[in-house]
Order: sequence, then structure tokens, then C-alpha cells
Amino acid sequence: MSDVFPEDLTPISELGEFGLIEKLTSPFRIRRPATLKAVGDDAAVYRVGNGKVHVVSTDLLMEGIHFDLTYAPLKHVGYKAVIVNLSDIYAMNAMPFGITVSIAMSNRFTLEAMEAFYEGVKVACDEHNVDLLGGDTSSSHTGLCISITALGEADEDKVVYRNGARENNLICVSGDLGGGYAGLNVLEREKRAFLANPDLQPELVGYDYVVGRVLKPEARRPVIEVLEKEGILPTSMIDISDGLTSELYHICNHSRTGATIYEEKLPIDPETWKVAEEFKISASTFALNGGDDYELLFTVKLEDFDKVSRISEIHVIGHITEPSQGVNMVLRSGGVVELEAQGWQHFSSEK
Amino acid sequence: MSDVFPEDLTPISELGEFGLIEKLTSPFRIRRPATLKAVGDDAAVYRVGNGKVHVVSTDLLMEGIHFDLTYAPLKHVGYKAVIVNLSDIYAMNAMPFGITVSIAMSNRFTLEAMEAFYEGVKVACDEHNVDLLGGDTSSSHTGLCISITALGEADEDKVVYRNGARENNLICVSGDLGGGYAGLNVLEREKRAFLANPDLQPELVGYDYVVGRVLKPEARRPVIEVLEKEGILPTSMIDISDGLTSELYHICNHSRTGATIYEEKLPIDPETWKVAEEFKISASTFALNGGDDYELLFTVKLEDFDKVSRISEIHVIGHITEPSQGVNMVLRSGGVVELEAQGWQHFSSEK
Repeated sequence: MSDVFPEDLTPISELGEFGLIEKLTSPFRIRRPATLKAVGDDAAVYRVGNGKVHVVSTDLLMEGIHFDLTYAPLKHVGYKAVIVNLSDIYAMNAMPFGITVSIAMSNRFTLEAMEAFYEGVKVACDEHNVDLLGGDTSSSHTGLCISITALGEADEDKVVYRNGARENNLICVSGDLGGGYAGLNVLEREKRAFLANPDLQPELVGYDYVVGRVLKPEARRPVIEVLEKEGILPTSMIDISDGLTSELYHICNHSRTGATIYEEKLPIDPETWKVAEEFKISASTFALNGGDDYELLFTVKLEDFDKVSRISEIHVIGHITEPSQGVNMVLRSGGVVELEAQGWQHFSSEK
Repeated sequence: MSDVFPEDLTPISELGEFGLIEKLTSPFRIRRPATLKAVGDDAAVYRVGNGKVHVVSTDLLMEGIHFDLTYAPLKHVGYKAVIVNLSDIYAMNAMPFGITVSIAMSNRFTLEAMEAFYEGVKVACDEHNVDLLGGDTSSSHTGLCISITALGEADEDKVVYRNGARENNLICVSGDLGGGYAGLNVLEREKRAFLANPDLQPELVGYDYVVGRVLKPEARRPVIEVLEKEGILPTSMIDISDGLTSELYHICNHSRTGATIYEEKLPIDPETWKVAEEFKISASTFALNGGDDYELLFTVKLEDFDKVSRISEIHVIGHITEPSQGVNMVLRSGGVVELEAQGWQHFSSEK
């Protein structure tokens, strides 16, 4: 029996998540003509006939990394696990139709706990009209592990990838940004207080919106529906799971463009502002680098400006530029800064 | 913050895997007309148009539960993780076209280790002509966690479910049985010897076949191809991942039938016999209750007897009976015993 993990090899932490995925999947080539997109977008895309494509996306969620059962009830964890995947389907401009749900759990979990988890899964399925198509259950030596795969359908000519942004396209986001990260900060603060003094009750009054953003996020189906209704086909799209900056870089890298956004245009909820002030962090930082918003970031042609301006949940925050200009933000003060991609670094050694 | 896991609730270990899945998924109803089968077969089935269906199956594999890195090289773990899922696709009489692969790993894993894992994934993709459609990577607090989803396609009128067995159908299995469990026993024996004395080299000479069965199992695409070529459409089918008895009960329960099989007809490799003797366990027990064979168990109409008899890798081991007769085996001695379903009890308290 050999030593499986000698010490002189490359630690995963040196790569970061995106570098790791690229490194591991680069030997794979698309072999089937029906496969239009494999690794590298919110979801893979493959033809099913009649001008239709299916899209598939999958996520693996680990207790202690992606969710914390100290403050996230299992019903919410189940709901969110599904929503996060459906968000990827919508980000392809597709409509989800089915999911698979697998769980591995240690023996500290009871039947009632897992029923609560599946209740949350069911609420998400009901809201988004998707079928639970299957799954797997297993035991785990430590904690809860959740794997969800979501499937969706779209017309082939209406699928929106990350790579279609063009110079002078308008950059749009749905809803508001930074709320998920604000909520996480509040919950982490209350957890620290609780651990220090278990008799304390959490102080969550006045934080309903931001706590809701992190515990019960929504996938933006209404945005996809209103774009369809208004006859707007985005040129590129991605969902905001890792923070605006990181997602904007994905669009610019895939589309080979630059981008300029305006700090004053960032849509930020008043409650997010309040939390940012309490934590003495700029609200823009929450919006740019916080994760867990699940809003949509997309680009549209300049001539769609009037149409998107009439849609209340969509905000134009900037425009696409030529690649040499980089990815920048015009500050409220009038200065310009280059944005630094951060995102969640699950594998970074700092964490 | 509430106590998430009070002590007075139902431990998961009271249910067993199949009971748990049924309990958790029973509130879900199929809501979409395109969904033909959701939970409860080797794979879910949904229409994609033109008389075609897609099938989807998913597995979650946990280190220490489903694989042991003491003796399973990561390349083999990657290969097997894919094969196990493709086996479920073939068991629907469908052809796989794509997979997603997600992994969560602790920081003891190196880039080189994960590259070995993906090498195994790629060999399986190459052999079965499937595309890697995507996946997810994440960190884990302990160990390696693998989630794979496989997608396949079939003509709607050729999909084979578990519930189509009828009285007097012939019960067939491909290949041979018990080898996976024999191999596992050998590897566990060598692991114990290694842990007791780390200078010992494992004694695997003469066990190539059974060790290969557990470390590098095959999905039985050739069986599906030969059945198609010979014009045999099975009436029911399942892959043998948990042992023949458990799978035969699945077919009988779903089809509402009984079954009689013959001990002397069980196909068992000589090496499996040898290991069974060494461990002083009946080889039939390995075949009936051992897992990890990934052969196909299926039923065909009586009139297909001549056709299946001519196919060397297929063995007729019995026939379907009316439900009141139960699930029985005629012993070599001539006696008859009712088979006891065991399967892998991941959640049972004995484990």
C-alpha cells in the first residue's frame, strides 16, 4: 500500500477554485456534436432536438463551508440548495424543469431533521414548477453534504452565455446587491455573541431583509420572464453568487472585453447600507465582493436602453468597453479604480 | 439559536436507506407531463420530444463509506465513480451521453492527487463516449466527497423499468456475481495485515480478477448492445450494485411478482470460489449478498429463451412466479429457501 499523499506535491490552496477547475478539466474535449457547451459557464448546454437545448448545472454544498447549522434551519438549507442551482439555470436564460438531490449525513441527524430539509426542497420545487427527479442518500462520517443537479430547457437561439458581451453593451443587474453578505455578517456576529454567552437571544430585529437574503435567497425567474415579455435578449448573462466584481470579470474574460461601472449606480438596499455602517465597511464593498446575492448580471444592446429602463427591478450600472481598458469603477468622488476580483476563495490558504 | 438535534427524535439508523428515501420523497408528486418516472428506479425518465426520453441518475460517494484510499488509488476511484453511474443508465436500456462530476476535498489532497482522480474519470468517459458536462469543486473539512450525475438517452418505447416483470418471464444476469465482494474481503484482509505491520507488502497475486472487480468494475454496455442486436427487449432490468437478492426484491416488489432462482445456475468465477473458501463463506452468499458487481439483472419473455441462451455473457438463473410464492432459491441440495433481502445497510446501526 503506497503513501497516497506525499508532502512534496502541489497543495490545492495554491490554485484557487477557478484555477483548479480549469486545471482538472482541461484534458477533456467535447466529443459529442450535440454538446454545445461543457465546463465554463453557469450550466452546460446540449441539443435535444427540435431547436431545443437542455442545460445542466450542479453544486456540492458542505456543512461548515457553505452553510452553518448554528443559524440556518435545515428547511432553509434545503430551500437555498435548490434555489442556488435554479439560479444557474435562469442565468442561461433557460427554464428549469427538474432537479436531483443527494445527501450524505452523519448519525447526529434525525429523520425529522432530514424531513425539514426536504420540506425546503419541496417549497422551492413548488415555486419554480420543477420535478424532483431522483437522488441518493448516504451516511457521512462528519456533517451534512448536499449535492444538487438542476436541469432546464431553452430554445437554442435564446440561450445566453457568458461570452456574448460586446463593446458599448449596457451592463445590468437585477434587484439589489450586498444584502447576502450583510446578512451573513449579522448572523456571524450573533453567533459569536451566542457562543460567548449561550443565554443571549439573537438580535435580528431590523435585519429581516438582509438575513432573509442569506437564509432564503430567491432565484430570479421573474427577471427572465420580464425580459422575454419585453423582447429583450441579453448578449451575456451570469448569476451573482460570488460578488459583482468576480462575475463581471467572468463576463469580460469570456467575452474578451473591458467594462466600466458606476459606483453611484450600484443598487443597494437601505438595510444593507445600515449594516455596512455598523461594520464600518463601505456598502459598495459589500455589493462588489460579497457573495450569496443570486441576482442576475447581464448585458444588453445599447438600443434596448429604453426598454430596460422601464423595468423597475433592473438597473443599468455601466457599459462594456474594449479589452485594453480593463474592468473599472467610476467612484462617487469622480475618480476611477480598477476592480480587483476576489470572489469566494474556498481553497485559499487565508481561509 | 435553537437546538437543532434534540435527542427524542427518530435516528436515521432506524429506517435503512430505502425506507429513508421513500419517507423523504413521498410528499413529492410528479408535476410535469414530460416526467415519466421520478424517484424509484435506477434513473429518472423524462420526454425530450421525437419519441426520445432522457434518463438521469446520480450518486454521492463518501470517503470511508464508499471507498477507502488505503487501497483504492484515486485514478481508480475516479473511474469507478463514473462507471457506477453509467451502470444505472444502461440498466434503463439507455445510452449515456454526459456526466457532471463534483468533488469536495480536504486540504490533505494535492493537485496531483486530484489530477489522478480526473484521469480515471477521463478513461471512463473515453470508453463510454460521454462528455464531461460540468461539475463543482469545493473544500471539505474531512475527506473526499464525490457526486456524479449521469445523463442518457433512449427511445421511449425501449426504456426498461424495474416494474415490467411478468409471471413465467426468465430471470437473467450478465457476467458473474460475488467477485466484487470477494475482492473487497481480500483488500480488507490485506489492509488489516498492513495496519498491524506496515512493512508487509500486500499479497494480491492470484486475486487479480476479484480485486479488479472491486477497484475497476465495468458498466455492462456490451450487454445492452447485444440485447439490441439480437432483438431482445427485457421486460424489467436493474443493475446489481447491492447484491443479487436485494435487486431481485426490487424487481419483484415493483413488478408485484414472486421469483424462483436456482443456486446451481448462479454464475460465479473460480477466483470468487477460491476466496469464499478461504473466508469459509459460501460462494453463493457472496453472489447473493455481496455488493459492487455492476452486472445487469433482467427478465425476458419465455419465448426469448433460445436467443438469450446463445449469448455467452448472459445466464438464465430462474423465472418469475406469482407474488404469493415469494422470492425463493432452489438449493443445490434440492431444498428451497426464501431469500432474505440484505443489501448495503449504510444507515443500519450495526455498521
